[in-house]
Amino acid sequence: MGYFNDQKREYVITNMYPRRELVNYLWNETTVCKCNQFGGGFSWSSFGAERRAIETGERNVYVKDRDSGTCYSPNRNYARLPFEKFEAHIGLGYHTVISEYDGVRVEYTLLVPPKGNFIAYTVRAYNLSGGEKHIDLYFCNQPQPDISGHEAYGMADYDEELGGIHFPHEGFALDSEYTHLFLASAQKPFAFETSKDRFCGAYGSFADPESLREDSLSCKGTSFEMSYVGAMQYRLTLAPQAEWENVWICGMGKSREECVALAKENASRAAFEKALQEVEAQNAQYSDVFRMETPDAVLNSQANIWLKRQLSLGKTWGRVYGKGFRDVMQDITAFISFNPKLARERILNVLRYQYEDGNPIRMMQPDMFYPYNDGGVWIPSAVLAYLNETADISVLSEQIPYLIGTSAENSGYSKPSVFRPYEGTEKAESVFQHIQRAMDYLYSSRGKRGLVLFIGGDWNDSLNNAGRLKKGESVWLTIATVKALNEFEEILRLYQREDLIADYASKKEELKQSILVHGMEEDHFLYGFNDYDEKIGSDENEYAKIFLNPQTWAVLAGLLDAPSLHKLMDTVEKRLRCDYGYMQCYPSFRKGDDKIGRVSYFQPGLVENGAVYNHGVAFKIVADCLLGRGDIAYASLKAISFDNPKNPDNGMEPYAVSNMYMGPENPYVAGYAPMSWITGTAGWLYRCVTEYICGVKPTPEGLKIEPCLPSAWDRLRVTRKFRGGVYEIEYCRGEKASVLFNGKGVEGTLLPLLKAGETAKVTVYFV
Amino acid sequence: MGYFNDQKREYVITNMYPRRELVNYLWNETTVCKCNQFGGGFSWSSFGAERRAIETGERNVYVKDRDSGTCYSPNRNYARLPFEKFEAHIGLGYHTVISEYDGVRVEYTLLVPPKGNFIAYTVRAYNLSGGEKHIDLYFCNQPQPDISGHEAYGMADYDEELGGIHFPHEGFALDSEYTHLFLASAQKPFAFETSKDRFCGAYGSFADPESLREDSLSCKGTSFEMSYVGAMQYRLTLAPQAEWENVWICGMGKSREECVALAKENASRAAFEKALQEVEAQNAQYSDVFRMETPDAVLNSQANIWLKRQLSLGKTWGRVYGKGFRDVMQDITAFISFNPKLARERILNVLRYQYEDGNPIRMMQPDMFYPYNDGGVWIPSAVLAYLNETADISVLSEQIPYLIGTSAENSGYSKPSVFRPYEGTEKAESVFQHIQRAMDYLYSSRGKRGLVLFIGGDWNDSLNNAGRLKKGESVWLTIATVKALNEFEEILRLYQREDLIADYASKKEELKQSILVHGMEEDHFLYGFNDYDEKIGSDENEYAKIFLNPQTWAVLAGLLDAPSLHKLMDTVEKRLRCDYGYMQCYPSFRKGDDKIGRVSYFQPGLVENGAVYNHGVAFKIVADCLLGRGDIAYASLKAISFDNPKNPDNGMEPYAVSNMYMGPENPYVAGYAPMSWITGTAGWLYRCVTEYICGVKPTPEGLKIEPCLPSAWDRLRVTRKFRGGVYEIEYCRGEKASVLFNGKGVEGTLLPLLKAGETAKVTVYFV
Repeated sequence: MGYFNDQKREYVITNMYPRRELVNYLWNETTVCKCNQFGGGFSWSSFGAERRAIETGERNVYVKDRDSGTCYSPNRNYARLPFEKFEAHIGLGYHTVISEYDGVRVEYTLLVPPKGNFIAYTVRAYNLSGGEKHIDLYFCNQPQPDISGHEAYGMADYDEELGGIHFPHEGFALDSEYTHLFLASAQKPFAFETSKDRFCGAYGSFADPESLREDSLSCKGTSFEMSYVGAMQYRLTLAPQAEWENVWICGMGKSREECVALAKENASRAAFEKALQEVEAQNAQYSDVFRMETPDAVLNSQANIWLKRQLSLGKTWGRVYGKGFRDVMQDITAFISFNPKLARERILNVLRYQYEDGNPIRMMQPDMFYPYNDGGVWIPSAVLAYLNETADISVLSEQIPYLIGTSAENSGYSKPSVFRPYEGTEKAESVFQHIQRAMDYLYSSRGKRGLVLFIGGDWNDSLNNAGRLKKGESVWLTIATVKALNEFEEILRLYQREDLIADYASKKEELKQSILVHGMEEDHFLYGFNDYDEKIGSDENEYAKIFLNPQTWAVLAGLLDAPSLHKLMDTVEKRLRCDYGYMQCYPSFRKGDDKIGRVSYFQPGLVENGAVYNHGVAFKIVADCLLGRGDIAYASLKAISFDNPKNPDNGMEPYAVSNMYMGPENPYVAGYAPMSWITGTAGWLYRCVTEYICGVKPTPEGLKIEPCLPSAWDRLRVTRKFRGGVYEIEYCRGEKASVLFNGKGVEGTLLPLLKAGETAKVTVYFV
Repeated sequence: MGYFNDQKREYVITNMYPRRELVNYLWNETTVCKCNQFGGGFSWSSFGAERRAIETGERNVYVKDRDSGTCYSPNRNYARLPFEKFEAHIGLGYHTVISEYDGVRVEYTLLVPPKGNFIAYTVRAYNLSGGEKHIDLYFCNQPQPDISGHEAYGMADYDEELGGIHFPHEGFALDSEYTHLFLASAQKPFAFETSKDRFCGAYGSFADPESLREDSLSCKGTSFEMSYVGAMQYRLTLAPQAEWENVWICGMGKSREECVALAKENASRAAFEKALQEVEAQNAQYSDVFRMETPDAVLNSQANIWLKRQLSLGKTWGRVYGKGFRDVMQDITAFISFNPKLARERILNVLRYQYEDGNPIRMMQPDMFYPYNDGGVWIPSAVLAYLNETADISVLSEQIPYLIGTSAENSGYSKPSVFRPYEGTEKAESVFQHIQRAMDYLYSSRGKRGLVLFIGGDWNDSLNNAGRLKKGESVWLTIATVKALNEFEEILRLYQREDLIADYASKKEELKQSILVHGMEEDHFLYGFNDYDEKIGSDENEYAKIFLNPQTWAVLAGLLDAPSLHKLMDTVEKRLRCDYGYMQCYPSFRKGDDKIGRVSYFQPGLVENGAVYNHGVAFKIVADCLLGRGDIAYASLKAISFDNPKNPDNGMEPYAVSNMYMGPENPYVAGYAPMSWITGTAGWLYRCVTEYICGVKPTPEGLKIEPCLPSAWDRLRVTRKFRGGVYEIEYCRGEKASVLFNGKGVEGTLLPLLKAGETAKVTVYFV
């Protein structure tokens, strides 16, 4: 597929035509740009509840040799011409396609600037040949001005002052204020086109646009279009070894004037270079927080660069299609070390989507009101991770309003509602109280067995109809509540509210007892009970006799003694392992069951119905590490890696993690990995590798080093920035576990805190 | 573009690559199939409030010569190969693409059967060459099984019993019961494909599907697809002059078993032929009701065949994207003569969407609740047209429930809401009472000038914010109410409710006075007043100083004496005519005005903002005829005809009428005609030609002959079926107007009624 270039923090795609399109994301706090290996895809900006499209589809460069008449797209190569070079460079915050053909080298780079609602592009064309080249170079994207469905509001034409094409779409009572798009060019084009039908031909396509056969694009404006293009033609004469370059930006404004101002400020080489440097600096900062050199080069690339990248997307954009409460909370948890201040802001912001009764909504922007019941369990772990990294307990006193309403109003929308603005209560309470209310909600939301109710579902979104009558109970959610209460106990200690510990400890004990009495079978925990007292995840069932998460979370929650937990994880190995990971449940449902929900209707092996759901595998790896099962943890990690030789045709991007691999029970798509980037797996895997395998654990008192390494590793090195200091950690296999801090032995595993700017050498001996 | 073949009732497209795709529709009472000249497009079935997709996009045949390796699509010819023949035949209820290339003739026909939720296709391949042909023939469409957005519910695989590909999509709590699609083949294919990515290649397209380069399609099922295909490969050896044919059907069922049964019954040559015959017979029936032979061959084709076709679409499917109350009412009005029984059913059904307060909703299926205020004016004309055709006053006593709710609840949705089932009141009232309530609603829904309120708008949908404060008044709507009251008066007479005539006559007089006092300027009627007492359609305004419809409807309503109406229509000629029709208003708005609404934000010359809105031009032609302005009427008719030499690049299908031609004020798309078929123009033009130009007017007492012919015509012939008899009418220019019935003079213009089966010869002398 390609190779990692860690020095440049790039992944370089050399096979431009793999099984499926490879996905890259570029983004800032308001704008997201998706692109495939060729640089095509959608982009939009989002403001609170609003999402405003910028562009979609192809973003192409074309080169026409005026002497020979040959015409091709250097970034897309539709005709599969024999390019000398054809690569996509996935950078941190930019995307570059490089090609060489017929004596011309083209470098095409996209980026989303650190701030602003626009995409920036640059194209450089070099004459590699010995003779003069007379080429027409075209740049073309597909702005999406239409925000109303009324084509009659739209037009597009070249605007001299703007230095590009202006796409207004002003209309009656529109939802968006951003009624103007533009594509501006640093250099004035020789010609332009605005209509897709004229550009491609009414029967043509971007693969071979008919307008390129003419000497010049039409230079005509247009109106009432389904699809516009922003196409510009440049007439170049390149001496041997000469180079041409240009910059474009495509973005939005509330008025033509705002577009003109944006264009003047940003459509230039200087502005592009500055943005690129800023984007790179921002990412370098993340890179430096944790660096490891292990014997596993791929894992090094992933942990040092790519998992950070992916979880950083999640901390801002959730799953992109929407910001899930639990999703953003988990991604922030992993993100904290990179930018504690930003993470703090993010946690505080996300907590505004919790009702005063303690339960948060499932997803914000767009809001989803289906009554999932697990939101609360993700709060204490995020806050505790923040406290571990920073020891900043002031966060617990921050006053945050609640979402207006109650979770009881979450009464049954199964699809996301329209975008709506956030509405908060006037009354604000402390973060501590938010957490406490979440714990109280979960404790009080229980059924006759003393287990926490499903209501609309839990982590397993697709068990969405097991508890709608408010009778069905989730064993997993009860286990997760125990884990959350463990974390809450630590928070109580840090917040010096020991007065509450006994009360919550007894509540936790009550939950544990309920789990142990009702939630266990011979070799595993059930998933739960539906509204009709039927077991889910039991050997009594025909399908889905066992689920992965209740077992792994029993370990995360410390529900049993170590030998019992080992036995439980042995069950996981025996009953849920496949060649490329661990199935979410087994065997897959093969018959829709309305007493369970969506999952039972999914085709076997797909999504929660028996896929290798990577998020669940990441929980499993943490569980392995907690039990000291380093080899199994590492093997599991490698099983879901893109380069698992037992699953060669999975389609995955090497630089991202996917939501799942389709399970072995699916007869058609077993092993295939769709939905890359859109998963909480990255954050958890990052913590697996850094905190659990390498064992570099932030705590309020300082870093602890508690590795759980595979037996194949004898030596590794980690650099970790922590509270201003730098820990350079050498790991060596030794005869007995011990830790040296600047050459001196340390009691236990806790490293002393450093002063800002200090560097310490740490040596870790492991057996 | 092509030619009319009236004998076969076909239009034959010979230029397969005109400015824009040419649109054809095929349909029955539950299923609609849109296709372009190549046969590609979408299809869906609709059941009450539900709309269920069948397929979308390309529907292609491919031929691969196994000896030479050449491969192409005979119906689509992406590569623009030099075909010997390449034609699309637009038939009444079928669509055929014929091509000849490389010694092979392929005839590809689609149809929607008279009943059932499926599309049927046949392909015939002939070997035109002298030698044996070894070809692989492929058929491919794109079924759309996904009704949930959950790809995990979906799969596709070949099903032996079905004899084709089965696409189930069963899921949790789906809105549709039709969870199964299928593509069945009469002959078992050599190979098949289910995945679009495999068929086209992940980076390929239907223009050059990569799988055709292999010897065989993959014969694999698939799952979790964004886009499926139904592709089948047939390995043929054709002797010289030999022919191969096959039939496929693509449709839906509530279960696999239903799909199997449908396939067994319908996926055969015999079933296809039967369906084709039935569809043709149904259409022939419409053709025979009215036939004319005038000196204008194009107009003959239009009136005898194509306008009937288009208004027949409207009577069942409204504007396809939704069934507008006013739209269906108007199309039924024109449709009545073809099938009075069906028209009667349709009127009764549509009246269920009227609230008990008298006002109907704007659109049903999907319901649109934006509070348009004009619905009621379209009811009496439709019922009266039915009474004129049939004299069946029993329709007035039919009991019909109302829509639950009140029009006051129509409180501001500007977009169609989701599909919802019809909910009717328990109380039913007679059709007569429905009409009366509509009249009473309009009369009582008036403002301080005594004019009818706009509320959300009237015929001019886009004046949607002139009256939301319930103050703005519409002059046009008041005129239209006068016209409706004229019609109601006739209904009162027929229903022997003369007791009510005086009351409604005095109400009508009141409305007229309000119009004359408040609604006139020097040379034209205003459009109305907005909520802020500002005039609309006045010379005081900067934009839209005059609108077309208030002038033409003043004639339709008989608002003034003849000389004044002539003067008014002279104003229309002076101020609104352009080279290709009459603008809806002039000059176009160039500045959004929230006190008016959407229309003011439309780009100049687009839609209601200054386009030649054909529906309005049709009203205008009727007005011309009512005033005896035959030459102007005819010239207007020809101005909006596809073949107007002053607007050569309009893009129109010759066999359909479009919603509009973009107005001359638009700098980019003036003269262009998008949105063919989707207009009420066809019905009105049909009535223009038959009732007003040829003057064959049904009345309760019998046919009247009152022509208004262009001076260029000296002679024409019309055949009209009416209440079981056949009138063969010869028109000749004479010295004095007179009518002979079977050779004998007739008093006035009324022809005697015939007995069923009788034929009469009528001679009409006109001056």
